[in-house]
Formats: sequence, structure tokens, C-alpha cells
Amino acid sequence: MTFHYTRQTTDGQARLGVFSTPHGDIRMPAFAPVGTQASVKTLTPEEVKAVGADLILANTYHLYLRPGPDRVADFGGLHRFMGWDGPILTDSGGFQVFSLNDLRKVSAEGVLFKSHLDGSSHFFSPEKVMEIQAKLGADIIMALDECPDPLDRAYNEEALARTHAWAVRCAEHQQRPDEQALFGIVQGGIFPDLRLHSAKFLRELDLPGYAIGGLAVGETKAQMYDILDVVMPALPTDRPRYLMGVGAPDDIVEAVARGVDQFDCVLPTRIARNGAIFTRHGRLNLRNARFAYEHGPLEEGCDCYTCQRFSTGYVHHLIRSKEILGLRLTSLHNLRFLERLMEQIREHIAAGTFYEFKDAFLADYLGRGA
Amino acid sequence: MTFHYTRQTTDGQARLGVFSTPHGDIRMPAFAPVGTQASVKTLTPEEVKAVGADLILANTYHLYLRPGPDRVADFGGLHRFMGWDGPILTDSGGFQVFSLNDLRKVSAEGVLFKSHLDGSSHFFSPEKVMEIQAKLGADIIMALDECPDPLDRAYNEEALARTHAWAVRCAEHQQRPDEQALFGIVQGGIFPDLRLHSAKFLRELDLPGYAIGGLAVGETKAQMYDILDVVMPALPTDRPRYLMGVGAPDDIVEAVARGVDQFDCVLPTRIARNGAIFTRHGRLNLRNARFAYEHGPLEEGCDCYTCQRFSTGYVHHLIRSKEILGLRLTSLHNLRFLERLMEQIREHIAAGTFYEFKDAFLADYLGRGA
Repeated sequence: MTFHYTRQTTDGQARLGVFSTPHGDIRMPAFAPVGTQASVKTLTPEEVKAVGADLILANTYHLYLRPGPDRVADFGGLHRFMGWDGPILTDSGGFQVFSLNDLRKVSAEGVLFKSHLDGSSHFFSPEKVMEIQAKLGADIIMALDECPDPLDRAYNEEALARTHAWAVRCAEHQQRPDEQALFGIVQGGIFPDLRLHSAKFLRELDLPGYAIGGLAVGETKAQMYDILDVVMPALPTDRPRYLMGVGAPDDIVEAVARGVDQFDCVLPTRIARNGAIFTRHGRLNLRNARFAYEHGPLEEGCDCYTCQRFSTGYVHHLIRSKEILGLRLTSLHNLRFLERLMEQIREHIAAGTFYEFKDAFLADYLGRGA
Repeated sequence: MTFHYTRQTTDGQARLGVFSTPHGDIRMPAFAPVGTQASVKTLTPEEVKAVGADLILANTYHLYLRPGPDRVADFGGLHRFMGWDGPILTDSGGFQVFSLNDLRKVSAEGVLFKSHLDGSSHFFSPEKVMEIQAKLGADIIMALDECPDPLDRAYNEEALARTHAWAVRCAEHQQRPDEQALFGIVQGGIFPDLRLHSAKFLRELDLPGYAIGGLAVGETKAQMYDILDVVMPALPTDRPRYLMGVGAPDDIVEAVARGVDQFDCVLPTRIARNGAIFTRHGRLNLRNARFAYEHGPLEEGCDCYTCQRFSTGYVHHLIRSKEILGLRLTSLHNLRFLERLMEQIREHIAAGTFYEFKDAFLADYLGRGA
């Protein structure tokens, strides 16, 4: 079997495992940096590898529009196009298309939308996104789903029916099952019964992995954690569980505690480009004048290139002076921070000390005192 | 003697040599990448070293305004602040200040100007720029000079008197002669008699190096080369000769043929950020649609990271998609192109084949056919 999730051990609900793909193993729980346009912003593939990432994500919506799936295929697929030889995941494009609001129109058949680049019209059906993702050639591909406002019950009921029908059509239309693992996406907003129904429905499709979509998009953190409490026990234990679009350190730790194996988020690289960094005591903004004369690293004890090599005062200067190197250095630090967090999570699950680690980490990170 | 120019051999007027500084040797002819704000744009110090640069330049005007010389000194000087342990050159700030046009007022004492950042008023005198450059701590520092329109005879005569008086005051006020080599700057526009007078005047100051300023700022290439023909023989053979602000490959080759040892320019990194690259057949703009399906490297035979690692089509996609990685990859290629050109120049001077190399290079680069 090309794709296989091996659960190595558990600590409560937290799971330590490995997901095998044709381009290598993904150590789980895993955080995937996002390379929206076939580039993890500001960084080379070697740098992304060096921060400890096994898996990266690329966005089907963006790559479909530019450079286009045929061009990526002409270069031998995403791995060769972007020079990343490890596992890649592409989303279905659904999330981006449904974020276009006024620019899209949904039907049972699929979703009609206008490009944010040039206003041209396009149509995504389940079959179409399977074809596009086959050309992009990622190791993990996602079913087309509809992403409603998580608080709107009526809309969630209606959307869920489409999402399920689309998942079936995606599974039927998948082109390269030996090379690409198709993950289904559990939807249903903040409504436990809808979520349970969705998990049960998708389980029947016997897919190699399951994602939880439609969270971290408007509900409270408490609501998100509650939904995870409901959904996780309803998913098979021998398949990875992927919480889409989540990357805040506290959310990662809370989600792992509920059985999540996999994450992705633009947060670390996006806040980096605004001069903000993760530290174990929370986020800091390096633009602040108090960092101008700081001779120490961004974070004491951090092993990232930035912290090993430069003072906080220099990075502050670069950010203030709008130097691109500053964006690279903060991006590297933030990704390394998250990958190091994942390493610590995996070590603590292995040692059976994950929940103590979680409490200590959250006390530090959320500033509630140790 | 801390600073020493060793001429190893010559081929006609072209000179092969080494300039020794407290932070290492500069192989000459040398091209110095520009790190205006204490960062060679988009690149780490390791990457700048890896392209083959011995020397980098930083701009006193910019660093004086932000982060300020006292802050740089607080971090131990520019080398430690920016993490570059090789030789550094700072200019005097004169060129930038005189570029401000409406924002500056010159007198015998110095030049009053307004910051381009916040409009605040500042004054540069020869003494002041010596103090600033002492705090920045570069290995090579430059005398304050006035940079007039090279075609305006009356202005050049008037300005030259000030430039010479300022050079004397810089030499008298230099603070750390054992750690910093002060270079004088020959001015005089396109007027041979003024240039000769300037070279003779500055020679009397017995400085460790001499620059040619006020070129590549409005005159034709032929006028620039003519001025080099006049000035070079008037400079001492045992000191490096630095042609400021020149970095076009054809100009470098022509200037080396006239006895220039040292160059700096923002050109390679600036055009890179517009998607333009150097090749031995001239400049190309990667935004052009014809590169979309190009599987080969930016330049066949180039040993830079970009060419070794990625297709032209991928770099085209990054540039079109405004990805920062694209700017890094073109910057790396262009700097490596120039540093490789300098390596070839040095090899051909050593072999006594520089002029054949020059003719072949220019035929290729300027497209006159081989």
C-alpha cells in the first residue's frame, strides 16, 4: 500500500505516528508550511527542509490560475517545478473560491467563480479539481468541499449535502490513487450533529485520510475545541486527521490533545512579513522601538538560523528599513518555532508526558504564569 | 602597514593585485555588491560570500539616518551588526546627499540636507563624515566629495575646489588610520584638465587608495572611457583605483582595460528585483512570456545556486507571481555573474590574455557577433 498511517503510540488522545507517501514519510503530528504559489514565501526548499518540515502545502486555486496545471505538468509536476522532493499536499481550491463571496456561484454541479487576478470566469467541479490536482501531482490531494459560515445552521445543512456528494464524485473520479492519497473533509460548522453525520458519511468512503474543514474561520477557540472533541472520536484511528488552516501554537497544542495529526497555516510566514515572531512567551512585534538595542537573539535557546546568527537589533533594523532579508529571517524563525514545537510534541507523546508539556506550554505562551 | 596593495602582474593597462585589509584580502579587479542599509538586498552574508564577493559596500547616508552610527557602534560596528566578517567599504554619503537636489545646500563648510525619510535637517562636513565612518567601522572609508553634473564646466570648477579642501580636512580628521583606509575621490566631470588637476592634487595627500567619482551619472560611455584614459596614468601604480558606482558588465571590462581595480554598483541587485538578469549575451527580462516553458537554467553553464537548482520557467513564474524567492534567485544569479566575470578577468590578466577575453566578451555581451 503506497499510503499508510502507522500509529506508534498514544498519550491520552494525542497520537504519535508516521504517514508514508511516495515522496517520503511525514512524522505526525506534523505542521505543513504553506507554499501558496509553489513557493513557501521568501524561502528556498533547502531552508524549508532545514527548519524541520516534512510536508508542504500548495494551493490549487492559485496554481490553477497561475501558472496553470498544464504548465506545472509540463515541468514534471509540483515536486520538480518547485524543487521540493518531499511530500506535498494540495488543497481542492474550494476554500479560496468560497472566500471570493460576490465572485462565485454554487450549484450541485460545482462552483462558478471569477479570478481575483483578471476577473475571468472559471468553473470548479469535483471532477475538475481531481483533474487539476492530478496534473499538479501532490502526494495528498483534497476533495472539493463547500466552506460555509460555521455559525449558520441552515447554510451548513445545505452545504453539507453538496460537500458529501462532491466527496463521492471526487473518490470516483480520482485519477492516480497509487500516487495520490485523497483526503475527505468533514464539514458541519459548529453543529455537533452535522459534524458527526459528516464524519460517519465520509468514513464510509474508506479514504486514506480525513480533514476537518471550516474551522478557525469565525467561531471562538472554545467552539473549535468543542467540535474537535465531537469529531475526533468519530474518525478511524488508522488514518491521519488533518485540521485545515490552523497554525496558532496554542491551537496546535489543544488540537493534538484531541487527536489531530496534521496542520497547515499561512500564519507563521504571514505574521513574519509584518515583523511579528513567535516565542514561547507569545508573539512579539519586532518593529517595536524597544528592540533597537537588543543584542540577544530573537528568542533565547532557539536553534534557527536567525537566532544563531543575528541580533534582535539587526533584525529590527531590517524590518524597519523594509529589507527583504528581514522577512526571510522572521519567516525562518517562525517556521522553525512551529516545527520545533511539533518535535517537542512528538517527543512528549513518545515519553507519555504530552499533557504536562501542553499545560506548561500554554501557561508560558498565553502568559497565564507558570 | 595595515593596508597594502600588491600588484601581482599586469596585462597592458589591466592590473592583477590584492588589497590587504584588517578583515582580509580583496582580490583585484574586484566587484563589491552594495548593501545600502547594512544588507545586500534579499541575501544573507553567507550567500554574498558564496557568490565570490570579497568586499561589500554600505551607504553612510542611509546608515547615518537609520539606524544611526551610534547604534551601529553599540553593536560593535558594521561587521558585527550585519554579520559580514570580510572587508567593508562605506562611501561618504556625499553622492546621496548631492542627489537630493532641492533638499540640500552646499557651502565651504559642508552640506546641509533634509532626510528623505522624515524631512529632518542634517549637516555633513568632512569632519562629520569621518566621525560617522569611524563609528560604522568599515575597512575602507571615503572622503566627502561634491558630485556635480559631469557636463557643467563652471560647476565642476567650483565644486572641485571644495572637494579638494574637504579631502584635506578628511585626511586631517581621520580617526582610525590603522583600521580604516581613507580613499580620496578624483572629480572634474568630463573635463580632462580638471581630472588631471584633481588626480595630481589628491596624489599629494598620499592616500592608501584613489577613487574616480562623478562618472556613470549622465555622460556617455565613450566620455567615461575617455576620462579613464586621462585619469588612470595620473594615479600611483601602488594604490588601488576604484571606479565608483559602475557595474554594467561592458563598463567593467572597459575600465579594467584602462587600469581600474575596484567597482561597486546597485545594478545587479536592482535589475534583479525587476526580473532582469545578466547573461553573457546581454540582459534578459524573465517576465517575458517566452520563458514560461523554458526548462533550462537562466544561463547555460552558470554555476550559481539558481542555475544549478531551478528552471527558468519556475523563476519566471515566481517573478510573475511577485514571490520574494524570485528576487532572491535573480539577485544571486546577477551577483554571481559579475563575480564570475571578475574571476575570468583576473585569470585572463594572469595569463596575459585579458584583451582577447575583453574583445570576445564584448562581442557576445553587446551582441555584435563573435
